Amino acid sequence: MKDEPLMVGSKTNPSSLAGAIAEIVRDQHYVELQMIGAGAINQATKAWAIARGYLAPSGIDLVGFPAFVDLQIDGEDRTAIRFTLFRKNVG
Amino acid sequence: MKDEPLMVGSKTNPSSLAGAIAEIVRDQHYVELQMIGAGAINQATKAWAIARGYLAPSGIDLVGFPAFVDLQIDGEDRTAIRFTLFRKNVG
Repeated sequence: MKDEPLMVGSKTNPSSLAGAIAEIVRDQHYVELQMIGAGAINQATKAWAIARGYLAPSGIDLVGFPAFVDLQIDGEDRTAIRFTLFRKNVG
Repeated sequence: MKDEPLMVGSKTNPSSLAGAIAEIVRDQHYVELQMIGAGAINQATKAWAIARGYLAPSGIDLVGFPAFVDLQIDGEDRTAIRFTLFRKNVG
């Protein structure tokens, strides 16, 4: 299993991230994305929607949920959002 | 079933929206949220995470997925994101 979440930023390309998500879940049961801020959450959400399209022809969907994650970055408390996406075989 | 998605904006209060989500899914199987833009997606994502916390003591979780939705608003083509959240009984 992949232990570290994929870190997503406001400049992350959603299509590229979707490709990475699709590749990971072909091999394993789930993938996690971690974001701080509205721009990053936007890119992660788009990537999730795009990845669903990439995987649909293989009979795979991605269902999941968001959670808050408390972090310390440079000694400051920050709250990130983490998406946990699970592979779901359909059709 | 509720036919119309909940419309979420960048000024939507995540805690209030979470309360509305929790109330709906106590009665029915799913709820849909519709957003245009990063600010709205941010608020919807936070509301989803908060609603999971509201529902957890009742043994309910919310799993779901995002999808793109093509809209026409004032004659212009816009792309919205829609979250579909399903009630999942746990524990």
